[in-house]
Amino acid sequence: MPFTSLDHAMMARALQLAENARGVSTPNPNVGCVIVRGGEILGEGWTQKAGSNHAEIQALRDARERGHGTVGATAYVTLEPCSHFGRTPPCADALIASGVTRVVAALTDPNPLVAGQGLARLANAGIAVESGLMESAARASLAGFLSRMERGRPWVRVKIAASADGRTALANGESQWITGAAARRDVHRLRARSCAVLTGIGTVLADDPQLTARDIGSVPQPRRIVVDTDLRTPTDARVLAGGGCWIACSTEALQSPVAAALHSEGAELLATPRAAGKLDLAALLDELGRRGINELMVEAGATLSGAVIASGLADEIVLYVAPCLMGDASRGLASLPAFTAMAQIPRFAFHEVRRIGEDLRLILRPQA
Amino acid sequence: MPFTSLDHAMMARALQLAENARGVSTPNPNVGCVIVRGGEILGEGWTQKAGSNHAEIQALRDARERGHGTVGATAYVTLEPCSHFGRTPPCADALIASGVTRVVAALTDPNPLVAGQGLARLANAGIAVESGLMESAARASLAGFLSRMERGRPWVRVKIAASADGRTALANGESQWITGAAARRDVHRLRARSCAVLTGIGTVLADDPQLTARDIGSVPQPRRIVVDTDLRTPTDARVLAGGGCWIACSTEALQSPVAAALHSEGAELLATPRAAGKLDLAALLDELGRRGINELMVEAGATLSGAVIASGLADEIVLYVAPCLMGDASRGLASLPAFTAMAQIPRFAFHEVRRIGEDLRLILRPQA
Repeated sequence: MPFTSLDHAMMARALQLAENARGVSTPNPNVGCVIVRGGEILGEGWTQKAGSNHAEIQALRDARERGHGTVGATAYVTLEPCSHFGRTPPCADALIASGVTRVVAALTDPNPLVAGQGLARLANAGIAVESGLMESAARASLAGFLSRMERGRPWVRVKIAASADGRTALANGESQWITGAAARRDVHRLRARSCAVLTGIGTVLADDPQLTARDIGSVPQPRRIVVDTDLRTPTDARVLAGGGCWIACSTEALQSPVAAALHSEGAELLATPRAAGKLDLAALLDELGRRGINELMVEAGATLSGAVIASGLADEIVLYVAPCLMGDASRGLASLPAFTAMAQIPRFAFHEVRRIGEDLRLILRPQA
Repeated sequence: MPFTSLDHAMMARALQLAENARGVSTPNPNVGCVIVRGGEILGEGWTQKAGSNHAEIQALRDARERGHGTVGATAYVTLEPCSHFGRTPPCADALIASGVTRVVAALTDPNPLVAGQGLARLANAGIAVESGLMESAARASLAGFLSRMERGRPWVRVKIAASADGRTALANGESQWITGAAARRDVHRLRARSCAVLTGIGTVLADDPQLTARDIGSVPQPRRIVVDTDLRTPTDARVLAGGGCWIACSTEALQSPVAAALHSEGAELLATPRAAGKLDLAALLDELGRRGINELMVEAGATLSGAVIASGLADEIVLYVAPCLMGDASRGLASLPAFTAMAQIPRFAFHEVRRIGEDLRLILRPQA
């Protein structure tokens, strides 16, 4: 049965609500839900922080609080309702108990604990079940969670800010500021929506960044992760502030005295295998996937950014371009292998092009 | 008296017609003209190639050929009608003879041979004269001619095609192709609208380019100019084909035997003074202005492009950006002085941002 324009409008609303959960619900997917009857919205909800209510439960509660019964209503959800007991009971059971007679999901949940069982449970209870409405929009909305479920690793966004000639710093390292205030604020918004921000030891030593989301109100803070093979992170590095920093290092470094010192500063050390002498980034991403990181933002120097890109691990590159030139003597944005033929260079497509203040924000994704 | 919406519509049409003259009328300005009475367009015209009719004469003739008298009509012109005898008689006289009773110009002509005398001559003949309608659009339309009249040098457009990390070739020089077919076709259109294309001896020796406008139908061809201090241009260089190439060289080089050889290949040598050891680009541009070059396109390597930009002589940079990365080992797009502070770098504004096929075309202009 084709979906109606009301169906589309309601799912679009559910996708909008899902944005409220972004950066908050992690590692759970950011899901939105709308309960509708006779064209009237009875209740709305989105996933709360992990361990608390999922979107469906919130929407049913919202309906109740507004004084609406939900018997005979339709529930629109951006992802298949869960069917298993996690930290919360199954949403499928709550929907059955609510008396809704139709459930429309944008997407079945690739989580092996769900994987169609949520919809099957609803159907078995006599509820009309449909799936696939606005699926591609939902896939975009849930890219991080889907990446972790389907590939076992986070969605990786490499952020770079550069001049129009692709330079990120003068030869002496000076780089403040290439882009304008609006672009820098946009970077903070990207951090707030990410589960974690990853940088390299070079950036920590050179810039001592906080890598927090600031100056955009009260927002969720991403976890900070440092790639630091030999544990050179100073114990007073700002990236450690507040605790919870993860430091990826070699297994040998784990035995060094500085390991204990960093641990006592609240950092957790992730022993990471090597590949070709360097830490194996693919293995690290797998570990981050196991640890529940859905969206990972890479904010690093040319070496680490280049390594992520050259390994084919970048799902998108967010390139802020400022209307200035810094010249060939300045530092480039990505260290890549010394190519000898044009066929070897990594090609992308411009997924999005947008002006942000006086700068541009280009989103490049691998060619489909 | 404020201009009416009819006035605006007719001047917009005249500006559109002026585009037909672009690349054709040089060194004369590309002007459009519309003759209107009672809301009806009686005749339209644009400047023909130098020595032939100006826009006003063409529009009056068009009206005649359509069987319309022009007594009592209004003439809209994108630039003040000329008042002097050049290779053609004054357009002001032709308008007076035509019986038009109102002339609206977008712009007074900064050419010292005109400079308000055209409008004055019309007013003296009892014609209602107005100026300034859509002036900024007309200034943009006539940027090359106005630059030559007001500053004595061409409007300089530096064209660069680069990867998203600002690279124009691999370390081994390979660069075919960074941008796609649509962007390369757009470059040919830019050449066709330019009075001349300027390159450096490095590009001539490395790539042996033709620098003609190709694959876009029958279009006017720009003059080719090479900056070649020591006259290293090979006598069989493709840029010399068809004759008419100008080679800017040092006064010493003018005495070398190769000078005569290049001359016999149809090249004209422009002895150019030096500044700080290199050819003085500002002096060369002044000479090109004296020689009637309105719009100059620079298609050169990082050295010459960088020198033009660093000298503040670039009126705009047309930067084609391809969605690929070539890495820090590849060649950069502009050699600029080694800056030691961010306050020293050249800052621009993004005047225009456009997708051209799979690539982007960014137009940067100096900050106003």
